[in-house]
Amino acid sequence: MPPEWARTPGVLAAMRHAAELAEGVHGSTSPNPPVGCVILDTEGEVVGSGATRPPGGPHAEVVALEEAGSRARGGTAVVTLEPCAHTGRTGACAAALRAAGIGGLVYAVSDRNPPASGGARELERAGVAVAGGVLAEEVAGGALRGWLHFARTGRPHVTWKYAASLDGRSAAADGTSQWITSPEARVQVHRLRAKCDAIVAGTGTVLADDPSLTVRDEHGAPVPEQPLRVVLGDREVPAGAEVLDDAAPTLRLPGGDPEGALRALADRGVVEVFLEGGPTLAGAFLRAGRVDLVQAFVAPALLGSGRSALGDAGVVSISWAWRFYFERVTMCGPDVWISAVPAEG
Amino acid sequence: MPPEWARTPGVLAAMRHAAELAEGVHGSTSPNPPVGCVILDTEGEVVGSGATRPPGGPHAEVVALEEAGSRARGGTAVVTLEPCAHTGRTGACAAALRAAGIGGLVYAVSDRNPPASGGARELERAGVAVAGGVLAEEVAGGALRGWLHFARTGRPHVTWKYAASLDGRSAAADGTSQWITSPEARVQVHRLRAKCDAIVAGTGTVLADDPSLTVRDEHGAPVPEQPLRVVLGDREVPAGAEVLDDAAPTLRLPGGDPEGALRALADRGVVEVFLEGGPTLAGAFLRAGRVDLVQAFVAPALLGSGRSALGDAGVVSISWAWRFYFERVTMCGPDVWISAVPAEG
Repeated sequence: MPPEWARTPGVLAAMRHAAELAEGVHGSTSPNPPVGCVILDTEGEVVGSGATRPPGGPHAEVVALEEAGSRARGGTAVVTLEPCAHTGRTGACAAALRAAGIGGLVYAVSDRNPPASGGARELERAGVAVAGGVLAEEVAGGALRGWLHFARTGRPHVTWKYAASLDGRSAAADGTSQWITSPEARVQVHRLRAKCDAIVAGTGTVLADDPSLTVRDEHGAPVPEQPLRVVLGDREVPAGAEVLDDAAPTLRLPGGDPEGALRALADRGVVEVFLEGGPTLAGAFLRAGRVDLVQAFVAPALLGSGRSALGDAGVVSISWAWRFYFERVTMCGPDVWISAVPAEG
Repeated sequence: MPPEWARTPGVLAAMRHAAELAEGVHGSTSPNPPVGCVILDTEGEVVGSGATRPPGGPHAEVVALEEAGSRARGGTAVVTLEPCAHTGRTGACAAALRAAGIGGLVYAVSDRNPPASGGARELERAGVAVAGGVLAEEVAGGALRGWLHFARTGRPHVTWKYAASLDGRSAAADGTSQWITSPEARVQVHRLRAKCDAIVAGTGTVLADDPSLTVRDEHGAPVPEQPLRVVLGDREVPAGAEVLDDAAPTLRLPGGDPEGALRALADRGVVEVFLEGGPTLAGAFLRAGRVDLVQAFVAPALLGSGRSALGDAGVVSISWAWRFYFERVTMCGPDVWISAVPAEG
């Protein structure tokens, strides 16, 4: 349990604000973590705030310190992730906080990533009052989730998203699927896509649905920064396919092996993968134990036939079922939006 | 909009209490409606309350009046359904309220059932202050829902219940299905069964799963009053099948035609039907437009193969999808419990 001075309403509010700032840049920082920082002065007033800029730009702490200027002296830095101790493309954040004369550091999640870790200890040794673990669970389940997964496992975090009828069908018998879910759900899917580094689909889905796999705003226009589009599989994709247009870069990965694909993506700095089906690819990732989060949009409709959202996942008997935990169940327009994480770990 | 005197906090609280009392007898009153009644004295104090007794027993108003005794004089009767005007197996409730010297009548839903209707008008003519429509929507969606459906259409109200994985499978590839959903969901299913007059399954499900189709309490013991068990279809059911034991009466209905089955059940006084799958029967009822409420228990599990919760429902293209409205989405233990009603009417 963090000390009392690091759990005052003012500090907790600052941490929640920092988490929101991090969420705002989620998807634009990889391979760096999306971090938020709020600087409180000696009276507890917010005098600076910021979030990680795109790679090469300043980290959250530096952005916030710049805004705070001399008012940071003796104040408290509230950060979602332990400040980094190493100097990479930018200077170390721990050093910047020290240079600014910060008197206290409150962070949510420790950075155990070898080259960067140790920032908190460094500051503590310099006489800064340090408290970690504040709102740690909340923050770790937010914008940092994918990055922490990558840091822990060395593999990109995989979100499998699908839209289906209440009975689990993602297309009708004749293959039509537009639209099972509501406009509200589709807007939400674009928001989720924007937080990822790569959108992955199989050649089967590309051939069947000709999706563009881009992030579009609420008016249907592509946003300026697009995730990498990844097409997995060996089947030929026609030159006129939407996924091969110039709206975003597209990577072809032959074979359908999830492990190999994730390794190739990790090598390219991809931290968060958004898996957009179809059933065969989703089944392969599930069988490989490589679905870390399910985002299901379930429509108030019944089909009774047509394409299942999920294909063969290697389950023969009920005791082999892939068990999850419903982390969040909420309405999204007329649909239900269900977030599920694997039951073990 | 009902008059102000009928919408005071005291009257609204009494109506909600009456609705709860009705819910408590839901499933034991058919073919009579499950009704609740609360009697307020001239000061607005609760002096009597009650709910419909099983057929042949007194209606809610009479039970409540008995408890109130002389304190009902000049008071207000708060009833979920307009009091009946006709004398059937028991005396008319409107006459009983008049005889008790009630000064005001507040009810939620009108009774348009020809032989019983007119109770409110009769009391108004006798000088009683009458207000209808108080919390009408809330009450009509509760214990009275099935009975109102029957009164309006002449057909039993059909609730299709199923339990499935998030991807819509009700059994794994090898046919195993125990258990997809949680103990909490199974307890809830028994509560829902208890509110119905008949539990219907097809011969396919009886042969595949050998279900008992009884209502059991939280300890697994059968409750004293059991709904009628109905097995639909032509396939032979072995004499040793659970559904043929003496835990409850069982009706065999040959053929798989939903309309014919519902007519046969209506003739036997069945107002509410609980359809317990499987996929073929559910598809047939859906195709016939005879699913009035879906109760889906969705487990945080993925199967990817095995029996679909819903079989062919006559949907070829996405525009033909059976569209519903999610009336209620709530957690039931680790599962999601979704109640859906047809989108039109």
